[in-house]
Amino acid sequence: GALAQSSLTLFGVVDAAVTYTKGSGNGSAHKTQLTNSGNMFSRLGFRGTEDLGGGYSANFWLEMGLQNDSGTGFPSNSNNQASGNGTAGVLSFNRRSTVSLAGPFGELRLGRDYVPAFWNTAIFDPFGTGGGIGANQIYFSGLGGLVAPTGTRASNSIGYLLPASLGGFYGQVMYAMGENDSNSVLPGTRVSNEHDGDHTGARFGYQSGGLNIALATGRTRYASGDLRVTNLGASYTFDASLMNLKLTSELYKESKGSTDAKGALIGLQLPIGPGEIKASYARYRLEPVGATLKPTSSKLAIGYVHNLSKRTALYATIARISNSNGASQALSGAITAPNRASSGTEFGMRHMF
Amino acid sequence: GALAQSSLTLFGVVDAAVTYTKGSGNGSAHKTQLTNSGNMFSRLGFRGTEDLGGGYSANFWLEMGLQNDSGTGFPSNSNNQASGNGTAGVLSFNRRSTVSLAGPFGELRLGRDYVPAFWNTAIFDPFGTGGGIGANQIYFSGLGGLVAPTGTRASNSIGYLLPASLGGFYGQVMYAMGENDSNSVLPGTRVSNEHDGDHTGARFGYQSGGLNIALATGRTRYASGDLRVTNLGASYTFDASLMNLKLTSELYKESKGSTDAKGALIGLQLPIGPGEIKASYARYRLEPVGATLKPTSSKLAIGYVHNLSKRTALYATIARISNSNGASQALSGAITAPNRASSGTEFGMRHMF
Amino acid sequence: GALAQSSLTLFGVVDAAVTYTKGSGNGSAHKTQLTNSGNMFSRLGFRGTEDLGGGYSANFWLEMGLQNDSGTGFPSNSNNQASGNGTAGVLSFNRRSTVSLAGPFGELRLGRDYVPAFWNTAIFDPFGTGGGIGANQIYFSGLGGLVAPTGTRASNSIGYLLPASLGGFYGQVMYAMGENDSNSVLPGTRVSNEHDGDHTGARFGYQSGGLNIALATGRTRYASGDLRVTNLGASYTFDASLMNLKLTSELYKESKGSTDAKGALIGLQLPIGPGEIKASYARYRLEPVGATLKPTSSKLAIGYVHNLSKRTALYATIARISNSNGASQALSGAITAPNRASSGTEFGMRHMF
Repeated sequence: GALAQSSLTLFGVVDAAVTYTKGSGNGSAHKTQLTNSGNMFSRLGFRGTEDLGGGYSANFWLEMGLQNDSGTGFPSNSNNQASGNGTAGVLSFNRRSTVSLAGPFGELRLGRDYVPAFWNTAIFDPFGTGGGIGANQIYFSGLGGLVAPTGTRASNSIGYLLPASLGGFYGQVMYAMGENDSNSVLPGTRVSNEHDGDHTGARFGYQSGGLNIALATGRTRYASGDLRVTNLGASYTFDASLMNLKLTSELYKESKGSTDAKGALIGLQLPIGPGEIKASYARYRLEPVGATLKPTSSKLAIGYVHNLSKRTALYATIARISNSNGASQALSGAITAPNRASSGTEFGMRHMF
Repeated sequence: GALAQSSLTLFGVVDAAVTYTKGSGNGSAHKTQLTNSGNMFSRLGFRGTEDLGGGYSANFWLEMGLQNDSGTGFPSNSNNQASGNGTAGVLSFNRRSTVSLAGPFGELRLGRDYVPAFWNTAIFDPFGTGGGIGANQIYFSGLGGLVAPTGTRASNSIGYLLPASLGGFYGQVMYAMGENDSNSVLPGTRVSNEHDGDHTGARFGYQSGGLNIALATGRTRYASGDLRVTNLGASYTFDASLMNLKLTSELYKESKGSTDAKGALIGLQLPIGPGEIKASYARYRLEPVGATLKPTSSKLAIGYVHNLSKRTALYATIARISNSNGASQALSGAITAPNRASSGTEFGMRHMF
Repeated sequence: GALAQSSLTLFGVVDAAVTYTKGSGNGSAHKTQLTNSGNMFSRLGFRGTEDLGGGYSANFWLEMGLQNDSGTGFPSNSNNQASGNGTAGVLSFNRRSTVSLAGPFGELRLGRDYVPAFWNTAIFDPFGTGGGIGANQIYFSGLGGLVAPTGTRASNSIGYLLPASLGGFYGQVMYAMGENDSNSVLPGTRVSNEHDGDHTGARFGYQSGGLNIALATGRTRYASGDLRVTNLGASYTFDASLMNLKLTSELYKESKGSTDAKGALIGLQLPIGPGEIKASYARYRLEPVGATLKPTSSKLAIGYVHNLSKRTALYATIARISNSNGASQALSGAITAPNRASSGTEFGMRHMF
């Protein structure tokens, strides 16, 4: 192949939106906010690659999340367990912090990185997993997703990624360590939690023509009950005769201890001149073992992104969450009563550099 | 106009000084310190502009304050209220964190930015508002200024700035949100504090020839009593026949709940070869409603800045604060008894990059 | 001399390793971890120099430590005392934060910087003071070293470094301030601790041909007992006829209040093609005044570094700590019983940019 050049890159995204969200029913609340990351997650990063010859390269990637509405950041988690959470708002390279060796064999990557199963949730939702009101409801209301220390990324990870040129096949595996002492026990018990925070995950997919399909799974060990996530994502992009319409979908299944949950999502992206129309519908159901009620939430989101350039866009989104069986999910900033809806609108600007 | 180029800039200031300050009277204390920001506020920033054509541009600005004497930083405030203060010493983009769209119409700016009324205090004092012993006494001893969450900057802000070419007229307005829940109340009461931390501000000015004059005002809502600040600044720079002498002045009025305060400042800047002599005299009086005593402090500061280049300077400052009516303001690092004076000297080096 | 160019440099190291360490005896524990900084300390920095003409330059240096296995950082210490410790894991420019003026006279440096006595420990150990299992045992188990606020660096420092061209002689002195109030006392006493955290240090050396030798000392004042460190380091690099073998050694003596301690280290570095073999043996003995037992630990470390380029290397290390007289030092991540050994292995990758 062509000889890669050594490089050092400073990059980022600054994305801000004015967002109004409301709930309904008893005790509900509404809010108008300046939010961040409505279109893409705000970030600041440093990455580089060094050509080692023979198709090999050394690479590093340090990327911090930004809450640019207030100039703050996001803490990382040091041990894939709640005890390793950092202080809210501090800057850290929480998004990615890796060093890797890449070559014809693929890539061996060490550090903090995305868990494989995260990617299907991020890639096959037109609104992704950012801070916008359209973002993936499964991700925000799940047992894993935004909630669990390993729902998005894992620290202390060893990852292997297949090389790019396998006729459309791609894949990756990850093993990450909670790094507890070998004689560590759950407080007040003799139950070993040596392996709490240990994560294993894998993702394999195929992309060809307009088709992209991937299956992923992950397990994080906790003495109090493992977190397991499995998801399947697929998208198809039609050709110009169908206006380059892209349809996307995701099936999602997870469990944490004795609670199961299921989710599904369908979406579309339709280019319109310099812009794009996006829509998604997602459904998420919590299934506590033995419980009669299975709290269920669904979200419809519709958005328009107007590209001012390849790097800069204006965007608008409307979204609505419906709840049943006792669920009370609300859009960020709002509070809604059980079984009542939450809705919102946002107008924003995203700039990449 | 000329076509702006897209750019990405890494910039900053590292400024350190050896500072001795002392107080007098019972319980007074003196200190020798290595301080930061005596001449300009130490900082590290990333900013960029993308030319969108037609006179339009997309811009971002991320700037963190530095306490370079110890390698630490400054926290931001996430909600313009005391509850949103970050942890002391952490790094954050506390100084500015914005994304904006600029064009012939002016500039629309989203994020964390300076409140309009701050600028008169910073610009019309030859010593500015940095960490030096000469810095604006009104700013440091005020009800707003350094003390209040919105005394300098506001998070969650929407700002509009007039375009540059209006025949010398300039101006900006800001609305920033505290982002409390709509059903939020003061603890233990039914008094709504939904709007705590909401800030509105404006500044308008005129610059022509040697003259620069600006009026600014701001209000931050708190259920426990709003913070209101109004100030007027003016400067005049004489021509070469008067050695390019620059005279500056500021009138300042503020109130927080039932306490009023007033301040005034006069200053001068006199270029001398590669250097500059600076001096300022400021007076600040607290006027608690119904109280007999009106604690009053005044500060005299004289400094010399020796420019080694456009980016690097050595500087020396002496300053003295006088107190009356029970006031006990002291230069940073010192403690002084009520009605007694505090004085100090600093020698420093400032480098911009 | 040649005219230096003004420059602004973004630089860093990302180093990660898979490390297994174990202890032995009652209550011992082992652990497998992803660690950072096994070969060089992970960091991200910004530095620049501005040519002022006449051999003078202005310089700044801002460098943060990275825990890249989890994307977190290291706090700084603001006052050279325990009370100034920052929050674990936050990013800061803890490694170095200085502005300086350099010229024919040498360099005058202000800010947070390494204490002079640190350098002998770092330079004359083939494994340095990083996070690897081979790193200097004296540094990790000492009264100063990693343990004390001024064991590695001091904040609020004024440093002077001799110019480079003194026929092989080099040297530096530092004075750093704890910045306590002049009327500050130890809690509950009348004992002044005004000078707690004040540090004075010096280091002088000579380098010529294959020889490098340096003597350093430092004292940090604490009302509860000063910390004093003195060390002597030397190395000799043979010529090609002896395979460019480098032998290193350090003698170390320190005291904190009424406790003394002594350490010694010998090491070697042997280039082998694109790689290097390293080994060190160190011994550290704590000597509490009046106590019969003098806890003693010794460490043997052997490593191989395989350079893939000037910037990138793979490395492997094995190490073993032995304890006697009640000592229970263990390799990072392990716990060992008194008088029992701890051992470990690590395999890692280091990339500089």
